[in-house]
Amino acid sequence: MTKQDILAAYAFRHACKAFNPEKKISADDFDTILETGRLSPSSFGFEPWQFLVIQDEVLRDKILPIACGQKQIPTASHLVITLSRRGETLVAGSDYLLRFMRETQQLPEEVVKMRSDFYAFFQKELFKLEGDEARIAAWAARQTYLPMANMMTTAALLGIDSCPIEGFNKAELEALLAKEAGVDLNTFGVEHMTAYGYRAGEPARVKTRRTTEEVVRWL
Amino acid sequence: MTKQDILAAYAFRHACKAFNPEKKISADDFDTILETGRLSPSSFGFEPWQFLVIQDEVLRDKILPIACGQKQIPTASHLVITLSRRGETLVAGSDYLLRFMRETQQLPEEVVKMRSDFYAFFQKELFKLEGDEARIAAWAARQTYLPMANMMTTAALLGIDSCPIEGFNKAELEALLAKEAGVDLNTFGVEHMTAYGYRAGEPARVKTRRTTEEVVRWL
Repeated sequence: MTKQDILAAYAFRHACKAFNPEKKISADDFDTILETGRLSPSSFGFEPWQFLVIQDEVLRDKILPIACGQKQIPTASHLVITLSRRGETLVAGSDYLLRFMRETQQLPEEVVKMRSDFYAFFQKELFKLEGDEARIAAWAARQTYLPMANMMTTAALLGIDSCPIEGFNKAELEALLAKEAGVDLNTFGVEHMTAYGYRAGEPARVKTRRTTEEVVRWL
Repeated sequence: MTKQDILAAYAFRHACKAFNPEKKISADDFDTILETGRLSPSSFGFEPWQFLVIQDEVLRDKILPIACGQKQIPTASHLVITLSRRGETLVAGSDYLLRFMRETQQLPEEVVKMRSDFYAFFQKELFKLEGDEARIAAWAARQTYLPMANMMTTAALLGIDSCPIEGFNKAELEALLAKEAGVDLNTFGVEHMTAYGYRAGEPARVKTRRTTEEVVRWL
């Protein structure tokens, strides 16, 4: 892997507003994208996310008006909605987290105890989250941007386009997913969507960014 | 770039808790890491972040007790603190955003107008952020996890270790950076740190994750 390969992927990636609906991402490529989402880091390793891949056209048609009619939604090869975990499952000492540390993270019992204590301290002392499910949910929501970034970067490394989407009515999309897909809104909320596919045309404008001097400060 | 190269980087990356203090990242490699942070996407492309690279040992010593004495901080080759933008600069129609769209994004005046209107709509109707600087700040904070993920992934692609750090007292670190580095807390808050370097030893445990079936749902 050369630096040039990496930077070329960043030059390639842009918020692709319209995909070629005829050109589909191979199952193998899309599995690689999902896999880098799955392997992304998160605070405490609690992976507070769930990825819904929306391929059903009828469901996409229902999402479209909730998302300002953005044409990435019908034209994407694959459309991912990322849910973030919320509610009592993320409260320190919850059955869910204890089981997660034991079964998924395979931690020995003394480490489960130690991490539970540190997580409680973290919630109470550092983030002042104790007893405030809305703020715990906000902390979990931030984590979901890690797999989002990684999945878009993986796509770009594979020559696949993407578009991150936050422009939708969150409450309406949550209600739709509860109704149509049985999403439990006590446990999950919608954070963002990302559309993947192949661009229908070249980007309308060149990528702009603040200069390194404006963004980075050495101390 | 093969899928194997990408997935190998994800297998390599782990939350490295202690770095070899003798082994420094080359300037060229670290510039590449920073560059992928700089080129990361953000909502509206507003790049609501700033990267502080903390190389001063005296400053790191002052950060250490605020961050639970985590030994990544003194041993890291490079330590990045990410600030997120907040306050009135992010309110729709602010002078900062108008100048950003004109000068950084180089948008023609009619697009500046259109985007300003959509951003105002987005804040008011979709995220219900209007007039609530705390919630605008939370939205900006989420964006900073995109460059964080990308920078750690770039490091891993280059064979460089990293550790994301949220475990610190935010208020104390902000006060320290205001005092020692002149950070304007009306405009920036601290979100997270990431330590970069080369591992002192192999990871204590194997990477665990929920299975694909637990994480992904196709609809």
